[in-house]
Amino acid sequence: MNLKRAFYIGRFQPFHKGHYSVIKTIGKDIDELVIGVGSAQRSHETPNPFTAGERIMMIRHSLADTDIKHYAVPIDDIQQNAVWVSYVTARTPPFDIVYSNNPLILELFEEAGIETKQPPMYHREKYSGTLIREKMIAGEEWEQFVPESVTEVIEEIDGVRRLKHVSGSDQTF
Amino acid sequence: MNLKRAFYIGRFQPFHKGHYSVIKTIGKDIDELVIGVGSAQRSHETPNPFTAGERIMMIRHSLADTDIKHYAVPIDDIQQNAVWVSYVTARTPPFDIVYSNNPLILELFEEAGIETKQPPMYHREKYSGTLIREKMIAGEEWEQFVPESVTEVIEEIDGVRRLKHVSGSDQTF
Amino acid sequence: MNLKRAFYIGRFQPFHKGHYSVIKTIGKDIDELVIGVGSAQRSHETPNPFTAGERIMMIRHSLADTDIKHYAVPIDDIQQNAVWVSYVTARTPPFDIVYSNNPLILELFEEAGIETKQPPMYHREKYSGTLIREKMIAGEEWEQFVPESVTEVIEEIDGVRRLKHVSGSDQTF
Amino acid sequence: MNLKRAFYIGRFQPFHKGHYSVIKTIGKDIDELVIGVGSAQRSHETPNPFTAGERIMMIRHSLADTDIKHYAVPIDDIQQNAVWVSYVTARTPPFDIVYSNNPLILELFEEAGIETKQPPMYHREKYSGTLIREKMIAGEEWEQFVPESVTEVIEEIDGVRRLKHVSGSDQTF
Amino acid sequence: MNLKRAFYIGRFQPFHKGHYSVIKTIGKDIDELVIGVGSAQRSHETPNPFTAGERIMMIRHSLADTDIKHYAVPIDDIQQNAVWVSYVTARTPPFDIVYSNNPLILELFEEAGIETKQPPMYHREKYSGTLIREKMIAGEEWEQFVPESVTEVIEEIDGVRRLKHVSGSDQTF
Amino acid sequence: MNLKRAFYIGRFQPFHKGHYSVIKTIGKDIDELVIGVGSAQRSHETPNPFTAGERIMMIRHSLADTDIKHYAVPIDDIQQNAVWVSYVTARTPPFDIVYSNNPLILELFEEAGIETKQPPMYHREKYSGTLIREKMIAGEEWEQFVPESVTEVIEEIDGVRRLKHVSGSDQTF
Repeated sequence: MNLKRAFYIGRFQPFHKGHYSVIKTIGKDIDELVIGVGSAQRSHETPNPFTAGERIMMIRHSLADTDIKHYAVPIDDIQQNAVWVSYVTARTPPFDIVYSNNPLILELFEEAGIETKQPPMYHREKYSGTLIREKMIAGEEWEQFVPESVTEVIEEIDGVRRLKHVSGSDQTF
Repeated sequence: MNLKRAFYIGRFQPFHKGHYSVIKTIGKDIDELVIGVGSAQRSHETPNPFTAGERIMMIRHSLADTDIKHYAVPIDDIQQNAVWVSYVTARTPPFDIVYSNNPLILELFEEAGIETKQPPMYHREKYSGTLIREKMIAGEEWEQFVPESVTEVIEEIDGVRRLKHVSGSDQTF
Repeated sequence: MNLKRAFYIGRFQPFHKGHYSVIKTIGKDIDELVIGVGSAQRSHETPNPFTAGERIMMIRHSLADTDIKHYAVPIDDIQQNAVWVSYVTARTPPFDIVYSNNPLILELFEEAGIETKQPPMYHREKYSGTLIREKMIAGEEWEQFVPESVTEVIEEIDGVRRLKHVSGSDQTF
Repeated sequence: MNLKRAFYIGRFQPFHKGHYSVIKTIGKDIDELVIGVGSAQRSHETPNPFTAGERIMMIRHSLADTDIKHYAVPIDDIQQNAVWVSYVTARTPPFDIVYSNNPLILELFEEAGIETKQPPMYHREKYSGTLIREKMIAGEEWEQFVPESVTEVIEEIDGVRRLKHVSGSDQTF
Repeated sequence: MNLKRAFYIGRFQPFHKGHYSVIKTIGKDIDELVIGVGSAQRSHETPNPFTAGERIMMIRHSLADTDIKHYAVPIDDIQQNAVWVSYVTARTPPFDIVYSNNPLILELFEEAGIETKQPPMYHREKYSGTLIREKMIAGEEWEQFVPESVTEVIEEIDGVRRLKHVSGSDQTF
Repeated sequence: MNLKRAFYIGRFQPFHKGHYSVIKTIGKDIDELVIGVGSAQRSHETPNPFTAGERIMMIRHSLADTDIKHYAVPIDDIQQNAVWVSYVTARTPPFDIVYSNNPLILELFEEAGIETKQPPMYHREKYSGTLIREKMIAGEEWEQFVPESVTEVIEEIDGVRRLKHVSGSDQTF
């Protein structure tokens, strides 16, 4: 076995077409992709409405129409930057390269001697978790920004109602 | 989406043909299987030589020859039984049924109102993690007890040497 | 034993007449009340000057003149919303209903299948922990907003001096 | 307020007549008793079948026929002996004296400058949590060793069945 | 042995001439000084760029030209003020007096019955960790504010580049 | 600065002449030695009677008669072997080589790409923490096995009485 594996991390609140597009691009260069689901311990709050398990399901169902072999692994915040890389690598299959646009993540993996690469930016102004959550709370259309499977997952878990409720903006309550 | 999902948990130190056979059986009754990788935080010790990431890789590669849609999720020991079920469900896609032969796991899920079922026992005396680790330490044949993919993963990470070393039994050191 | 038990939670920094009045109202409908003392691990800071133990003493002494059978239990912040309900229920006698005006708490218990109810709002603009702590720091009258027993507890622990000191506003230091 | 408060701690798995008798004796010398419910985070295992909340309910109901003013507070194991005393005192009303027969607890409070006293031993060979749990598992009579209220609580939560199950001794499974 | 030991704590991000000067002054009154390295678990972020180990090295090398016998001990944030003093004293040699200008630290040690003293303020407007980090990020001169040994440590670990990177201000990236 | 730094770890319960002799030997090959004080969070129990702070004081006073530049840093048990190396390196000055006879520690540092070396064994049968603690409990002579400074520290903290007490063997209590 001599597979090239990469690591890519996000909070995926929710997983959207921007994420999907970056992963498709990365997928061309590698054999397997390890997807870290960050802030895994958080849920039921405005910036993090969905549990790690729900986000994993979004990812797996969305990527089912690709042939990218991937793993989706929850990664808790541990608040100790100097320990974070080994916390991640202990929970993930070994990988050779990290794709990220986050300076802290790049710095931490580089100090650990792991190769890093910045993936092409997707349309940030268009596909943004913050924007999607705001639309959900406001009762506006958001479905066009996420893969169809994500809409299905959010419906299964009644996710928009939950987000509205915890954001305190649900006026019917 | 109206999928039937089940949950099955083990330590998988390592993933062996007994696990593989149980999962094949469970797979016939359900749409998706969530596999919990227990004691995820442990590694590099005689009863738990492999990291959660390495065990996830064993599982995913071994099940690649089946058509069972599955998730492999690391589950840390949290030492608080009364909280454990919600710790698991927060990190996993929603599931309808739990397969286990462990009385504690059955009790905890039953108290939480989740259906449980005992899977058919595989050949326990033959396929056992303890036995496989003992053979690895003793330098005996162990490969016949695990799927071929597991042998490949253990070779990639030089796992037998690690286990021998941490078990203190490596006389060449 | 077929008692109706309810759960009510607050930070009680300090316990004031607003809390007292809500509890009196809830007490009419139930047999026993479990009172969660939230952010139990915090103390000695401007928004949370009192320890959990001190707050428990305030509650018990204040309710001594009622006939409401109650429990006061410290509840630490655990920063994992999806696990929080079972963290609470593991530390408290079983209860049938939750009284709260907090959308997050209502959401979490409702997702867990536990009945919730919003208690009548007491005079929020008048009885507010924030306001009382501000008056303490400013050296103004605050005693009229809390039960007499709370004044006694705060005197016993020299609590106003502590709050002034940690708020950095104690000019005599 | 010039009350004399004492501290007494146990695991109370379950609360039995020996505990009850010691508390009655201590109660004669003091105004209020703080009862620590130790190993609070543990439950659903042979030596610790009951949750902290269930144990608190046992204590409060059993002492309802006395006039001892008391608090029952869950105390988690924190595995750091040198920090333990302040962990306890942060969660409990201030107390002047500690009653214990445990050398470690006596040592820790004495090093912290808090007065300690050894309560009279109750019939240890007769009233023992271990013995009571063994009888529950074996299906023998245990009710005579605990206050009647404890029997009621254990029935309400179906506690004997739980203990049998997690102890692995329930042959009907 | 009848040594007088004192405790002094800071975050030392980085250790600068203000710290050095305060320690020289304290050193005249005591036999040994225990230096707590606060927020030990934090690093690789704008307000806390350096690890506890790096900060310990800065302190030890800077004080090598004095004859002050001292210990440098990492102290993690534990977010439980009421437990903090015993957390510190468990990790440090016993001390008789605490030097601090921080009201919270003074309050906590005073409540624990330990003598406190406010050291003479060094030139706060001149020697400030915040100011030094801002200069590092801006690419300005900062070396004159720290002992020469600190400059050497920061060079050895390539610290300015790290700080620039994690602060997101490194435009060449 | 181009210093050669080494790392050496032990529990030092207590620091004895065997440790002293190994450190003297290692000291000849390096510029600075980082001494990890393991199981730092434990104290007041038979195998770990002394706090991390007390052990640090033993080490520093004992090595005062050498010219070995050293650091003594508390290292808590974190129960996650795969993360342990970075937990250590975050709290310690950077080092080039690890001296240990413990297979697990050797394995973990080797997997992290750090050079390891086994120091010459000192007289294990003679100088052993276990043996010294047994002699303390039994009331026998132990002073000849430790540096004189260690005897002084243990007297200052009344350590033998503490060990006897927590071991349950103090018959005068």
